[in-house]
Amino acid sequence: MNIIKALEWRYATKKFDPNKALPKNKLEILKNAFNLTATSYGLQPVKLLIINDRALQSKLKEHSWNQPQVEDASHLLVFCVEQNIGADYIKKYFERVKNIRNTPEKVLEPFQNFLIEDFENKTAEEIQQWAEKQVYLAMGNLLTVCAVENIDACPMEGFSSETYDKLLNLNEKHLRSVLVMPVGYRAEDDMFAEFKKVRKPMSDSVVELS
Amino acid sequence: MNIIKALEWRYATKKFDPNKALPKNKLEILKNAFNLTATSYGLQPVKLLIINDRALQSKLKEHSWNQPQVEDASHLLVFCVEQNIGADYIKKYFERVKNIRNTPEKVLEPFQNFLIEDFENKTAEEIQQWAEKQVYLAMGNLLTVCAVENIDACPMEGFSSETYDKLLNLNEKHLRSVLVMPVGYRAEDDMFAEFKKVRKPMSDSVVELS
Repeated sequence: MNIIKALEWRYATKKFDPNKALPKNKLEILKNAFNLTATSYGLQPVKLLIINDRALQSKLKEHSWNQPQVEDASHLLVFCVEQNIGADYIKKYFERVKNIRNTPEKVLEPFQNFLIEDFENKTAEEIQQWAEKQVYLAMGNLLTVCAVENIDACPMEGFSSETYDKLLNLNEKHLRSVLVMPVGYRAEDDMFAEFKKVRKPMSDSVVELS
Repeated sequence: MNIIKALEWRYATKKFDPNKALPKNKLEILKNAFNLTATSYGLQPVKLLIINDRALQSKLKEHSWNQPQVEDASHLLVFCVEQNIGADYIKKYFERVKNIRNTPEKVLEPFQNFLIEDFENKTAEEIQQWAEKQVYLAMGNLLTVCAVENIDACPMEGFSSETYDKLLNLNEKHLRSVLVMPVGYRAEDDMFAEFKKVRKPMSDSVVELS
């Protein structure tokens, strides 16, 4: 597997084949890859909804600038942030560390206290911004995983987060939608698949200091 | 190549082997992968510095909570955002589209005008936040690329961006540092390599609606 070839193969798919479904094993890869994403302090303030419901996708399309990918793709991934991130949320993380690694509470306590204080000093908006960034990191991971697995995807910021939250009852779940990504397989006639990639020359993108 | 095994292999490396250098072909992969990252509207408001200079890394370590990875890793990646994103910057993007794809100006013009207006309606802070998110997406991509290529890495938010900007003369280059990632090879005795990964149970991380 050549990772660069995989990244060159991927593109923001504009037209999906509505008759091609992602097989279960590919979905399992996406789920596991999402859960394995690195996040700040390991706190995972992110959640992934996987929608496979044509009627719901059709409804959501209306609130996504009518982009057909939302309806036609095999599955619609909705990347969310957790809304309640405070002392209780952080304590649950340290419970997981204790259970999974058998780390003694005494060893964990100073860092737990530091983190709780650190988050208590942040405003609600700062915490939400911090969490949103972790969602972007998770999407960066999944886009590359899709490329490696020959899954087509389209990363999207263009949708009404408020309407998604209502239609998907996300407030009740203390979640907020941040990014959307239809996944599946490109239609044979998606002309965007043939377009050359537009990127800066390497010298404008990367600077080496040595 | 099993992508899940690769993601399980990776961890936030706490101790690098200072004597193991990344070979040139691996660096080329990182550079190309960075430039291939998907970004919002394809605008690439991001730049990657690759530092391979032990004295400079040692100096930067002092401004990274003294984390030894900054000094000991083979290379230090510094993810930056562009500071000047406005009409000129956007026009340069459309120049690239025209040159690379031979798209007629008439076809591009409406979207170019839309984007310029869209960005003129954003505050400077909103634009910087938008750009920062693209940096997180780029890091999400590179972390996964590193895992696939058996390159060890440590994603880091814990450093003084202001001091980095001064020491690296980033203001002059209209850049601002956002994230740091030492890359190289783990030391044989990095005990963190053996720790079990701490992750939420899948049911807390992913919800399927179908």
